[in-house]
Amino acid sequence: MQFQLTNDFIEQIERLIARNDRNMLRELLSEYHFADIAELLEELTSDEATYLVKLLETELTSEALMELDDDVREKILDRLSPHEIANELEGMDTDDAADIIAELDLDIQQKVIDKIKDEDHAADIVELLKYDEDTAGGLMAKELVSVKETWTIAGCVREMRRQAENVTRVHSIYVTDKEGRLKGRLSLKDLLTAPGKSHISDIYIPKVDYVTVHTESEEVARIMQKYDLEAIPVVDEGGVLVGRITIDDIVDFIKEEAEKDYQMAAGISSDVEADDSLLKLTRARLPWLLIGMFGGLGAASIISGFATIFTKYPNLLLFIPLIQATAGNVGVQSSAIVVQGLANDTLKGNMVRRLLKETVLALINGGSIAFVVLLLSHFIFETSYMESLSLGLALIAVIVLAALIGTFVPILLDKKGIDPAVATGPFITTSNDVFGILTYFLIAKLILGY
Amino acid sequence: MQFQLTNDFIEQIERLIARNDRNMLRELLSEYHFADIAELLEELTSDEATYLVKLLETELTSEALMELDDDVREKILDRLSPHEIANELEGMDTDDAADIIAELDLDIQQKVIDKIKDEDHAADIVELLKYDEDTAGGLMAKELVSVKETWTIAGCVREMRRQAENVTRVHSIYVTDKEGRLKGRLSLKDLLTAPGKSHISDIYIPKVDYVTVHTESEEVARIMQKYDLEAIPVVDEGGVLVGRITIDDIVDFIKEEAEKDYQMAAGISSDVEADDSLLKLTRARLPWLLIGMFGGLGAASIISGFATIFTKYPNLLLFIPLIQATAGNVGVQSSAIVVQGLANDTLKGNMVRRLLKETVLALINGGSIAFVVLLLSHFIFETSYMESLSLGLALIAVIVLAALIGTFVPILLDKKGIDPAVATGPFITTSNDVFGILTYFLIAKLILGY
Repeated sequence: MQFQLTNDFIEQIERLIARNDRNMLRELLSEYHFADIAELLEELTSDEATYLVKLLETELTSEALMELDDDVREKILDRLSPHEIANELEGMDTDDAADIIAELDLDIQQKVIDKIKDEDHAADIVELLKYDEDTAGGLMAKELVSVKETWTIAGCVREMRRQAENVTRVHSIYVTDKEGRLKGRLSLKDLLTAPGKSHISDIYIPKVDYVTVHTESEEVARIMQKYDLEAIPVVDEGGVLVGRITIDDIVDFIKEEAEKDYQMAAGISSDVEADDSLLKLTRARLPWLLIGMFGGLGAASIISGFATIFTKYPNLLLFIPLIQATAGNVGVQSSAIVVQGLANDTLKGNMVRRLLKETVLALINGGSIAFVVLLLSHFIFETSYMESLSLGLALIAVIVLAALIGTFVPILLDKKGIDPAVATGPFITTSNDVFGILTYFLIAKLILGY
Repeated sequence: MQFQLTNDFIEQIERLIARNDRNMLRELLSEYHFADIAELLEELTSDEATYLVKLLETELTSEALMELDDDVREKILDRLSPHEIANELEGMDTDDAADIIAELDLDIQQKVIDKIKDEDHAADIVELLKYDEDTAGGLMAKELVSVKETWTIAGCVREMRRQAENVTRVHSIYVTDKEGRLKGRLSLKDLLTAPGKSHISDIYIPKVDYVTVHTESEEVARIMQKYDLEAIPVVDEGGVLVGRITIDDIVDFIKEEAEKDYQMAAGISSDVEADDSLLKLTRARLPWLLIGMFGGLGAASIISGFATIFTKYPNLLLFIPLIQATAGNVGVQSSAIVVQGLANDTLKGNMVRRLLKETVLALINGGSIAFVVLLLSHFIFETSYMESLSLGLALIAVIVLAALIGTFVPILLDKKGIDPAVATGPFITTSNDVFGILTYFLIAKLILGY
């Protein structure tokens, strides 16, 4: 049953486009789901994709456009006239249409809006454009079904039939007062199972979760997940119902956030995919490598500053990679746990207790590793007792230090309002590398007396 | 409007529990959402939490139990009798109830099932228990609304009123033939807007996405996301409709998968939170640190094997941290992009082209970094021309090598059916550390002639 995009199919489509066989293409593609059409468009050249967008029903292509990668969509929109873009927008929900317009150049935006035939639709889109994209206002759509509390069920069903035509999925029916202020909700199920002649005010549920247009997207996602909501109404400062957010937008948001955190932890500074251009990939990757490079040069300065000690005890140099790798690994582990705790809002209790716990944990891990290394280094590398002691103590100290830096830095960033995820990956690894090596040599100097 | 758990509130509840003030507790807590009750339970001792679970309405506590962390829930269930557990299960959807039973000890499971009063509910739960938890069968619930294609709309609405009482949220009405085989679907909206006397067979949509009980959870999540589905029906081998999966289960699944990948990349081997016990945290973190430790000792052996060269050119030792950090960072970046591409199914094209692209990218990044390092090392650390040349070439070689390992290993693991995410983090960092240092010294030996 599942659609599988094959090379044969892509080649067939390309041949038909080359032959300009419009009827055959329409016949072949009109039965597919928009998500499948989107997959196909991503595999074609921009000109071929644009050809199909112009050819197929807007009902299909408008939804497919929304599923495309930003870069692919941008290239197709560049090839469409304002009039053609406006046509695609007519078929979209207001939130999607507003997202598309926001991607266009400023001088094109107004031209496209002017070409939208449905004036209400255009007005709704313009309204949505004024909200910050990271807020509930930026996520919400204007499509919703609302009824007044004074209506009867019968009147309500009539009115709903009218409104529901514009709404793809009806999750809840929102109940407002005469001024449009949100009062409660009504499920379709209630409407179906309630006696026909009662009034809305008799059966609606006055308890309803909602957010305001200014609520941050992250908070909206948190609320919808916590309370297992499939849609949430959005009100303005006066409590007037102005839109709703559905769970599919939140699913996309959660995925994007998770990917962003993951990439940040891996030292990739902007959202890239394996198939992006070399330039885009280099721009995303080089900056973090340069930070690591400066860390490496810093470490080189530290080592060269301790030249006298390693001339006398060259064995110490063998364990630089061990110290560095351990510091890096511990730091990444600690910061990952804290970053996830902050993201899920599960990080309770006070800072001092957290750092104390992390220290105890680091002492357990550090003790275990130092013990194994002490044994092995002594027998394999024939280090002296004092060298082994320096190494063991340094390992414990480095692990404790790395754990504390890994725990403290994300919490601090979060308190300052900075995304704690930037503290993971190369940033924490690099600083731990440098501090780790410095600690190692300081302890060696202390014990070996140089 | 948002619930905020305060220490004052927790203390108030604890005082009321100590005083055994059942009425006051019931009055105070019965108005809260189950997700808020769950948050409260997590902050209490197991005995206090069990006290509340026994006290409050099962309608509230059964849902709250589902929201709890596994460890917390286990402790509460340990303190309940089979009869009390069965009571909680009565209020749950079948998928949740089956998940809870699966967590219990085998000897308790049968006792609990025997105590469930609603026999249909018990039978549904037993049926769900037989499916693998990583498949659609393990995710699905038995609660759904289905109608036969031969019915009229009027009969359908009557039947739906009956069925809908057991179903929290009606997404779609599924249409089956007389033998229960899935034929199509009907939206509530269609039912509301269709003329009253038509037959189901006239208005239902025969195109319906579905999965079978054996479809893997990951594939279910992919399909529901791609096609923006809020619920998907599940059929058995014979095409008979046996359950449905809703988007909220998929949201949880997506989050868990993202967290697992993130933790794996950070070198944490099992799902832990900052508030878990020291033992659990140590078990999750120590294994990866030990792998890193063996890598570090491997690197020590390599360095000691090149003793003749660094006795003559001690400057080379200064740059070990730089080589190691760069190899690690590049490897993590490359593997992260591949792992995400594999997870999102966006990794197309053949392997050779991908490795070629990664090589070109590595040459660009490597060239840039080598150039900066060459300049700085020569002026700051007064390395000789030949030393600088060795360092620069080694950097480029190490970056290319690390990028290829980071790209190749996850793809290979994926082909072998192993989760590619294990190849990120400490695993790739450690192997790149060792290979990086080896490459560095080999190139130095080649150029400096030792």
